[in-house]
Amino acid sequence: MAGLSVHSVLVTGANRGLGLGFVQHFLRMPKPPQWIFAGCRDPKGQKAQELQNLASKHPNIIIIPLEVSDPASIKAAAAKVGEHLGGSGLNLLINNAGIAKPKSLDMETLEDMSEVYTTNTIGPLLMAQAFLPLLKKAAQEHAGSGLSCSKAAIINMSSYAGSIEDMYVWEFGQVVSYRCSKAALNMLSKCQSLAYKEHGILCVALHPGWVQTDMGGGGSFKPPLTVDDSVQGMLKVLSSISEKETGAFLDWEGKVIPW
Amino acid sequence: MAGLSVHSVLVTGANRGLGLGFVQHFLRMPKPPQWIFAGCRDPKGQKAQELQNLASKHPNIIIIPLEVSDPASIKAAAAKVGEHLGGSGLNLLINNAGIAKPKSLDMETLEDMSEVYTTNTIGPLLMAQAFLPLLKKAAQEHAGSGLSCSKAAIINMSSYAGSIEDMYVWEFGQVVSYRCSKAALNMLSKCQSLAYKEHGILCVALHPGWVQTDMGGGGSFKPPLTVDDSVQGMLKVLSSISEKETGAFLDWEGKVIPW
Ligand SMILES: NC(=O)c1ccc[n+]([C@@H]2O[C@H](COP(=O)([O-])OP(=O)(O)OC[C@H]3O[C@@H](n4cnc5c(N)ncnc54)[C@H](OP(=O)(O)O)[C@@H]3O)[C@@H](O)[C@H]2O)c1
Ligand SMILES: NC(=O)c1ccc[n+]([C@@H]2O[C@H](COP(=O)([O-])OP(=O)(O)OC[C@H]3O[C@@H](n4cnc5c(N)ncnc54)[C@H](OP(=O)(O)O)[C@@H]3O)[C@@H](O)[C@H]2O)c1
Repeated sequence: MAGLSVHSVLVTGANRGLGLGFVQHFLRMPKPPQWIFAGCRDPKGQKAQELQNLASKHPNIIIIPLEVSDPASIKAAAAKVGEHLGGSGLNLLINNAGIAKPKSLDMETLEDMSEVYTTNTIGPLLMAQAFLPLLKKAAQEHAGSGLSCSKAAIINMSSYAGSIEDMYVWEFGQVVSYRCSKAALNMLSKCQSLAYKEHGILCVALHPGWVQTDMGGGGSFKPPLTVDDSVQGMLKVLSSISEKETGAFLDWEGKVIPW
Repeated sequence: MAGLSVHSVLVTGANRGLGLGFVQHFLRMPKPPQWIFAGCRDPKGQKAQELQNLASKHPNIIIIPLEVSDPASIKAAAAKVGEHLGGSGLNLLINNAGIAKPKSLDMETLEDMSEVYTTNTIGPLLMAQAFLPLLKKAAQEHAGSGLSCSKAAIINMSSYAGSIEDMYVWEFGQVVSYRCSKAALNMLSKCQSLAYKEHGILCVALHPGWVQTDMGGGGSFKPPLTVDDSVQGMLKVLSSISEKETGAFLDWEGKVIPW
């Protein structure tokens, strides 16, 4: 990870799955970030135990209460992160939190469509708005001219299931609410890349692969990738991308996925 | 329009703009549909006057109260349409109703993102669910084997602004809520095409061009296309497409638009 060196990073949904994997991998870097902000919607809950244990051993992990579908929670989180940073910027925002509701097209409802879109698409939009001042600050602090994840970047965790062209594993699960939210997230990433380029902020949509997490492994099926393999791959991708890749949709190996 | 011959059609948002244009063009066909169901969310309102006038002269126009963001309204509309059809199916569902909120990325809110998605994306999903039995019936009644708009079809009015690849007229308007909703609608169309193919139903996403309507013509700017040119073009496209095109994203001249 020679190419990725960040002073500060915020990961949403950091208490389990890929989000927790990111936190662990940042800790293991040769030069770990000074600040690892771990967004978590229920820091006192059972599902945050592992993250709490980790944070108790690593003072550079700061657990931030964060519900990404709630604008007030996002605002409070941005204020808290700003306080900790005390004047310096945020290099990396990883919009990782997401939900999926396994359903067939016939069974989708207004409520499910709304909930999934709010978490997976509107959340990342509001997060980027709220943390934009801190991301801009990081970009200004950084010497180099081009774009990079070590400077300032927004990483939206998308999914190959959001590829309209390929309709990845349709036979395995229609999950229309999820597919629509991720296609929309890809559009958002492209919009952010165009709007935030002038501020020196790189934006990409990333597909982590099919990964052994609560979301990835439904029932008896075991997905091909471990969290470690996926996160390691993604961090390698993040270490290598620049202004050429801003606005792209990439998988955990750096391959371009069609929209 | 030799190739397009439908017994029944439903157009949402039929009281003005492109929706009203569709109703007018169906009336002018050599062999007009026996039933033109004109969905309208406020049939008694000022904005429905022109449609009311038209309906008073043409008994094959049935105005159907229809708010596409309200599942109860959609259900009631499907029941009403079913009654009129008295046992026969619905050939063509045109999900035309849509909204846009001109805003920059910075100014988007949770409320706007939700409202636009509910109308532009969830509405078409719920409409297709509710009218599926009538569309299936039409497909069964029809002799031919392949897919066609004369048999049974769902037409989702999308927008070139929903193309993630091309980011059409970004400089003119960021309208991120709208772009995200249309990218998601494109995904929905693709999902519908896969799920409904076995029922004999064709599904496409259509871009009408940049058209002189309330939505298309903001302020002093005059869009290049008249409603007549756009609708005429789209009906020609609908008359010619078959199973080869199901799931595609086409413009009013039949050209494929990249996702
Ligand atoms: N796993 C895969 O195969 C796969 C494939 C493609 C894409 N992805 C994407 O990768 C990301 C992470 O997935 P994962 O597999 O790690 O999922 P996961 O194991 O289900 O974990 C989801 C995480 O998101 C959090 N979260 C959900 N809704 C939230 C909200 N409204 N506010 C704050 N946090 C919220 C959860 O918190 P709680 O513990 O409080 O619920 C949890 O920390 C998602 O965006 C997913 O769509 C995953
Ligand atoms: N004009 C263009 O250049 C252009 C370009 C690309 C795509 N499109 C798409 O083409 C479609 C038609 O656009 P247009 O230009 O004709 O727009 P328009 O002139 O603004 O008319 C919109 C129509 O949709 C109806 N509507 C809006 N929200 C509704 C809801 N929740 N329930 C029921 N009806 C609703 C409106 O009814 P009310 O009168 O009650 O408001 C009106 O009849 C839209 O989907 C639009 O996104 C247009």
